[in-house]
Amino acid sequence: MSKRIVIIGCGVSGTTAAFHARKTDRTAQIVLLGDEELPEYSRCGLPYAFSHVVPSLEALIGHDEAFYEQMNRIDLRLGWKATSVNTEKRGVEAIRTKDDSTETIEYDTLVLTTGARTSTVPVPGSDLKGVFTIRTMNDVERLTNHLAENHAKRVAVIGAGLTGSEMAEALLQRGLAVLEAEIVPEILPVILDPDMALIIRTRAEEHGVEYHLQSTLEEIKGRNGRVSRIRITGTEHPVDAVVIAVRVKPNTELAKSAGIALGESGGIKTDERMATSAPNVYAAGDCIETYDRITRRHVFFQLATTAVRQSLVAGINAAGGNAKYPGSTGVTTVKLFGLEVSSFGPTTALSEKLGIRPVSVRVTGSTRLPYYPGGKDLTVKLLADPKDGRLLGAQLVGEEGATLRANFASMAGHLGLTVQEFEEIETCYSPPLAPVWDPVTIAAQALLRKLQTSQLAKSRPVTTVEN
Amino acid sequence: MSKRIVIIGCGVSGTTAAFHARKTDRTAQIVLLGDEELPEYSRCGLPYAFSHVVPSLEALIGHDEAFYEQMNRIDLRLGWKATSVNTEKRGVEAIRTKDDSTETIEYDTLVLTTGARTSTVPVPGSDLKGVFTIRTMNDVERLTNHLAENHAKRVAVIGAGLTGSEMAEALLQRGLAVLEAEIVPEILPVILDPDMALIIRTRAEEHGVEYHLQSTLEEIKGRNGRVSRIRITGTEHPVDAVVIAVRVKPNTELAKSAGIALGESGGIKTDERMATSAPNVYAAGDCIETYDRITRRHVFFQLATTAVRQSLVAGINAAGGNAKYPGSTGVTTVKLFGLEVSSFGPTTALSEKLGIRPVSVRVTGSTRLPYYPGGKDLTVKLLADPKDGRLLGAQLVGEEGATLRANFASMAGHLGLTVQEFEEIETCYSPPLAPVWDPVTIAAQALLRKLQTSQLAKSRPVTTVEN
Repeated sequence: MSKRIVIIGCGVSGTTAAFHARKTDRTAQIVLLGDEELPEYSRCGLPYAFSHVVPSLEALIGHDEAFYEQMNRIDLRLGWKATSVNTEKRGVEAIRTKDDSTETIEYDTLVLTTGARTSTVPVPGSDLKGVFTIRTMNDVERLTNHLAENHAKRVAVIGAGLTGSEMAEALLQRGLAVLEAEIVPEILPVILDPDMALIIRTRAEEHGVEYHLQSTLEEIKGRNGRVSRIRITGTEHPVDAVVIAVRVKPNTELAKSAGIALGESGGIKTDERMATSAPNVYAAGDCIETYDRITRRHVFFQLATTAVRQSLVAGINAAGGNAKYPGSTGVTTVKLFGLEVSSFGPTTALSEKLGIRPVSVRVTGSTRLPYYPGGKDLTVKLLADPKDGRLLGAQLVGEEGATLRANFASMAGHLGLTVQEFEEIETCYSPPLAPVWDPVTIAAQALLRKLQTSQLAKSRPVTTVEN
Repeated sequence: MSKRIVIIGCGVSGTTAAFHARKTDRTAQIVLLGDEELPEYSRCGLPYAFSHVVPSLEALIGHDEAFYEQMNRIDLRLGWKATSVNTEKRGVEAIRTKDDSTETIEYDTLVLTTGARTSTVPVPGSDLKGVFTIRTMNDVERLTNHLAENHAKRVAVIGAGLTGSEMAEALLQRGLAVLEAEIVPEILPVILDPDMALIIRTRAEEHGVEYHLQSTLEEIKGRNGRVSRIRITGTEHPVDAVVIAVRVKPNTELAKSAGIALGESGGIKTDERMATSAPNVYAAGDCIETYDRITRRHVFFQLATTAVRQSLVAGINAAGGNAKYPGSTGVTTVKLFGLEVSSFGPTTALSEKLGIRPVSVRVTGSTRLPYYPGGKDLTVKLLADPKDGRLLGAQLVGEEGATLRANFASMAGHLGLTVQEFEEIETCYSPPLAPVWDPVTIAAQALLRKLQTSQLAKSRPVTTVEN
């Protein structure tokens, strides 16, 4: 009899696991449970569908149901929510949301791709109409309708991380005024040092975003049950809607109640084969914690690239194969107000929290030689661990070329190269395409000099700016 | 007394060596001899100044004479040609071309950056007016004047390598009809396999280039002493000028007559400190042979990036420092007819000549997810050595993103990674910037499957095309 593989969660992780399970085992039964009524769509695309850069929400859907069922013989059950897992009896209890019918689905192997969920902020008024988080298509539809019905003019975004910043730009593109509140002193604190984030904030302010940094949302006030004002650190501001974009959290309740071990970060713990503590149960994506190759800890990355690589491994292994996931550098990119913003590795603040006093440099170069038209400024910050000279991280901001250079630097981080080894890597040049000395190389050379000087001086390293 | 460092050759190599010698030794006398009357300018920029993408030839000049002399205290002697080197007496004989005056310049250390020169083709008529090679500003000025004075309509370019292809596009941009003759069956044979080069040739033909492949220039015919026709493999074509863009050769005469050893490829032989066989004599750039980290041979790369890295090392060492150059992967990029064309490592044909039967794949992916507007096709070919699974080379062609991805792949080549190790490197994703699975990763995954299959089958590997 053929094996049954059950996958809980039909985001990009669940579908990736399902397709790779199918490639690995042509005869297995594969059951894919999704609690939304839609097949997998790109969550990362939601801000772009909201702003109409992508023409419709439907464009974000990866494959239609026939692709799952007829092309890949995957038993796709949409609108089914798993309510419990019995790892001894190898069964999943599920409920169909539209009619409350329940079913026990037995498995030979199970893959948990339950994803993550947004957080709300526990302040008075957070239950008013007009307060949103953005995780699903439904969230975007509701926000869009609310803005239209209320002739909205001004929206508050709470949290200036990746999603908050993308939504701030998307709201501006829809003609709304935007107020952004961030609890820490600078935007994008997870991926950038403040000196780098300032470049993006300056650009965003030119586009019209009104920032309130080091500011806490204290209350949301309403009129006729709808948002009308917010109070941030003692000051009230009239707004027509509030988008809460603070930290997302892994969905681990199902795993936890099944007795599956969670890790230090709160995500589901797996080994490099994506196996959990329960026999025949794998997990992948936003619900797990990931090995960070740079800081050598297990962390909660929320990256689609990390999720799909883990899910590929989980799907193959759940189908009887043997694949491994080696961990991630957390390399991330985002486009904001015409700037590519890319990074990997810990920020200076996080490094220091982890007991490393990084040596760093910040260099602004150009993506072309000065004589060739069209070159753009690219600011590169590199961090190194002075104890072993290892490249710890890179942060890049510019109108072009940051994303792919972050991959280049991140490869060095993945492999544990020293700054010296990294500096030796040659880059290609042609006047219309790239300069003779790449800005990343120039930064690496400056960092190398800095490391050598700081080793001589044995003094506390500080950031040097070279231009 | 301060040390005297003499540098022969004032291209990008000579000037880089001079500036880094100055950084290393603040008091040394530095004499920089250049046989042209101009300070260093970008040779790679010549086609773009010819086409007027760069506004003038003068824009290509790196620094004015004051920058050398006043800012860096470099004794810049333009219009001086070195005629011999005596490595025992440590002296250079030089002649000033404008008045034939001569001088013996003694050195403590010497750096040879004598560069390379273009080849002509030994056919009847190659000395007619209207036959050009392109290496200097003067060459471009002469070509420009000839085309104007003769109301030229059609130009033949002999050789479809990098320079020939760049010049063909530049001539088209100047409104001329272009005939390109190439002796081998496909264009760009040094950097691309024929299946990849075909993409560029197809695009170039759409732009109007008339190719004659597997064709030999047999004769150039003239009228009133000027080019009027060429005969290529038996057929005559009317043309108003001929640009010869065949292989360039290292300028090694000075080194050779001084008894300095040349290497297997014909370039000056150096160690990793850029020291030649003669004491206190260093060499760098187009006149030397470079260690190719991929094929593990010494070869004649003609890359500005390689030249400047070698010259930095030569300059530092000539001034008493201790720097090393670790060799190159030969990573190269060029923009042709709107396409980025980038590669590193040997082609399939060269690999086979070197006794490797590479396993390769060719994949066409997109630079964005399908739903996000503006994604461009990117075709990636990867080669591996089936004996050890090592990544041997990458060839990339597309409207964007080939250059920086070539650097990414080339880093793997530089470090000797296997395809498996390379495939594990995560890349970053965001809808406006990059897809979840990068085309290079997709190609690496396909290559890995192919390597595994070919190891099982022990059969002769062939190229697979996945799309």
